[in-house]
Amino acid sequence: MAAHSRAAASPRSPIAAADGPVRQSSVRAHNLALVLRHVAESPKPPSRAAVSSATGLTRATVSALVDDLVAGTLLAEVAPAPRTGAGRPAVGLILNPAGPAALGLEINVDYLAGCVVDLTGTVRHRLVAYADQRPTGAPGALTALAGLAGRLRELAAGDGLGLAGAAVAVPGLVAADGLVRVAPNLGWQDVPAAALLGATPALAGLPLTVDNEANLAALGELRAGGGARSFVHVSGEIGIGAGIVLDGALYRGAHGWSGEIGHLPVYPDGPPCRCGGRGCLEQYAGQEAILRAAGAPTLDALDPAEPGARTALTAAGSALGIALAAVVNLLDVDTVVLGGSYAPLLPMLREAIEGELRRRVLTADLAPVTLRPATLGADAAMRGAADSVIRAVHADPAAWLARR
Amino acid sequence: MAAHSRAAASPRSPIAAADGPVRQSSVRAHNLALVLRHVAESPKPPSRAAVSSATGLTRATVSALVDDLVAGTLLAEVAPAPRTGAGRPAVGLILNPAGPAALGLEINVDYLAGCVVDLTGTVRHRLVAYADQRPTGAPGALTALAGLAGRLRELAAGDGLGLAGAAVAVPGLVAADGLVRVAPNLGWQDVPAAALLGATPALAGLPLTVDNEANLAALGELRAGGGARSFVHVSGEIGIGAGIVLDGALYRGAHGWSGEIGHLPVYPDGPPCRCGGRGCLEQYAGQEAILRAAGAPTLDALDPAEPGARTALTAAGSALGIALAAVVNLLDVDTVVLGGSYAPLLPMLREAIEGELRRRVLTADLAPVTLRPATLGADAAMRGAADSVIRAVHADPAAWLARR
Repeated sequence: MAAHSRAAASPRSPIAAADGPVRQSSVRAHNLALVLRHVAESPKPPSRAAVSSATGLTRATVSALVDDLVAGTLLAEVAPAPRTGAGRPAVGLILNPAGPAALGLEINVDYLAGCVVDLTGTVRHRLVAYADQRPTGAPGALTALAGLAGRLRELAAGDGLGLAGAAVAVPGLVAADGLVRVAPNLGWQDVPAAALLGATPALAGLPLTVDNEANLAALGELRAGGGARSFVHVSGEIGIGAGIVLDGALYRGAHGWSGEIGHLPVYPDGPPCRCGGRGCLEQYAGQEAILRAAGAPTLDALDPAEPGARTALTAAGSALGIALAAVVNLLDVDTVVLGGSYAPLLPMLREAIEGELRRRVLTADLAPVTLRPATLGADAAMRGAADSVIRAVHADPAAWLARR
Repeated sequence: MAAHSRAAASPRSPIAAADGPVRQSSVRAHNLALVLRHVAESPKPPSRAAVSSATGLTRATVSALVDDLVAGTLLAEVAPAPRTGAGRPAVGLILNPAGPAALGLEINVDYLAGCVVDLTGTVRHRLVAYADQRPTGAPGALTALAGLAGRLRELAAGDGLGLAGAAVAVPGLVAADGLVRVAPNLGWQDVPAAALLGATPALAGLPLTVDNEANLAALGELRAGGGARSFVHVSGEIGIGAGIVLDGALYRGAHGWSGEIGHLPVYPDGPPCRCGGRGCLEQYAGQEAILRAAGAPTLDALDPAEPGARTALTAAGSALGIALAAVVNLLDVDTVVLGGSYAPLLPMLREAIEGELRRRVLTADLAPVTLRPATLGADAAMRGAADSVIRAVHADPAAWLARR
């Protein structure tokens, strides 16, 4: 159930995944993905001839592949722009906005959210329901999420959109089969979220994956962000998580549990953390730690002109900088993206973070680290979830064509 | 110059790297690698028929590919074992031990080393020259290394072995073109090591790469080690470096500078480090820090029954455990391999390291971390260097055949 969007999604995968001899069917799958990707990455709608010359495939092959992609609703043809020169202008190819769409969903501590994203990456619908998810526990949150998913499915159907699949972001450690092992801030333990959601009428029959919210937020940022191909995306919510993107691919780790930056020891003899450790980053730079230190009720109420708030933000920024110096020394990433509640706070955190990075990153003089706010803010995880579904279709259009 | 062995070496790469349509030449390259890999991974010499049935390629195709690989000295044929059953026993295929070999070289603070490894992975020759490399600076060390390389080339030639290439391990930050940006413990800065070595008679004309010693040591351990496909290999020398292997591939980072675990802040307000930071791991667990704390002249002289030594080792182990907890929380690796001078010390460090990992790794209860000594010890970096050359031949035999 969880396999399709967790695999490294790449147009090369039809052949690489086969890991055997090159057969005709895998050649076709490879070339379908190649054509689809070329259209997706073209700044303006390319003609079949342009696809042929860019990919090196013959015109006849390209035409046959395009016919299959058009019949499968992945590509659409658009009328050519009028041309002044000689010759008949050619029909252009675009990703089909009425083709398979994706459902991106998110469960967080104080809200549920979801969106419908079409094959071109456009957000067609977006719903957010603010409510503390802790009192009702996992069953209540999953029931409410299925309800939200059902409303989004109706909205998609109203647009004539079919769904290729759904992905769900959860702030916790998720196993490959969609079992949430631990979501500490939700209070969940061993919740079979994918199985429970897959059994609801709203999501039955739809390929469904469940993944860590920090990982999906990083994927969302990869798609929407400023073009960086390697970065660490830090989500500052009630907990602090990170998603690691290297060379355009999410770095998941052995179990998919990478990026637990919130539990990096910053001051090893510091205050105890609910994880069992001491002096973890969350104890200095988590939302609740900042508010407690500043004596403020909400992050919106923080006034940097007020000494208590300034001290709290400097301490949080310094702790973040120490943890990020460890991240950069270890992973050699040159961009750090601050998301979630950190994005609007960045102007007040930047000086302290950058000071620690300059002091503690071994390669600071050779390759300065860029620190920037996230592009998507709080929507990053559900956008990344939807994007993981769309990417899987882009990476293996043959599988989608076979399913229809 | 540095490109060939730094690329992700995989038998799939001929097609994946082309990133374009599938052409005949890339199909042949892919299938050559497939056949070579099947022979390399077979527990006993397979026949052509066995290669055909394992790969799904036709017998005629396999025979043509094998003929090319035999002519190119990559495969050799061995007489079949006598068989009692009916039918003529088939000739078996092996990697050719007289095929292209690799030169693995290492520069470290207190020694130079090198080895010749043949296509089957067997070490044919090994030379180590102990001498402090700091007094003569980079020119002296590189001249001496070229001399050692020349002696190894003669030994290889005496065995009738040609060389596919050479790789050099350096304890520093290396750019992709083989420029050593900084090697702090050697005192090097901006030394064009690949260019200087490539201009010596001993190494002229040979494909040559220069890489970080911790990265190469991790590759060596990957090949020789206990079968773990994902691990962090920590080299404890004068400095402390780490190589990160995930799913069988080295994780290099944006510039190839990943794994600088020696400069993870352990106690952020601790003693100043030569990197400009404070309280870095090297200040607590580097060789010199351990000896200073124990009041011992050499690591061999450490007696765990002696209270001063015990205190020093516990402090070092605890600092290592805190840094490794950060590594595991961030990277989700389930095996940590201690190499270099840490390997023999592990029995005295284990309790302190494991205590910190249990306390501070968020997923310690879900997926315990395995801690083990390195298999290759001090030879890991030069073995990994040679192995990177051999892997490149395995991954793209067509390139080797074209070069001959």
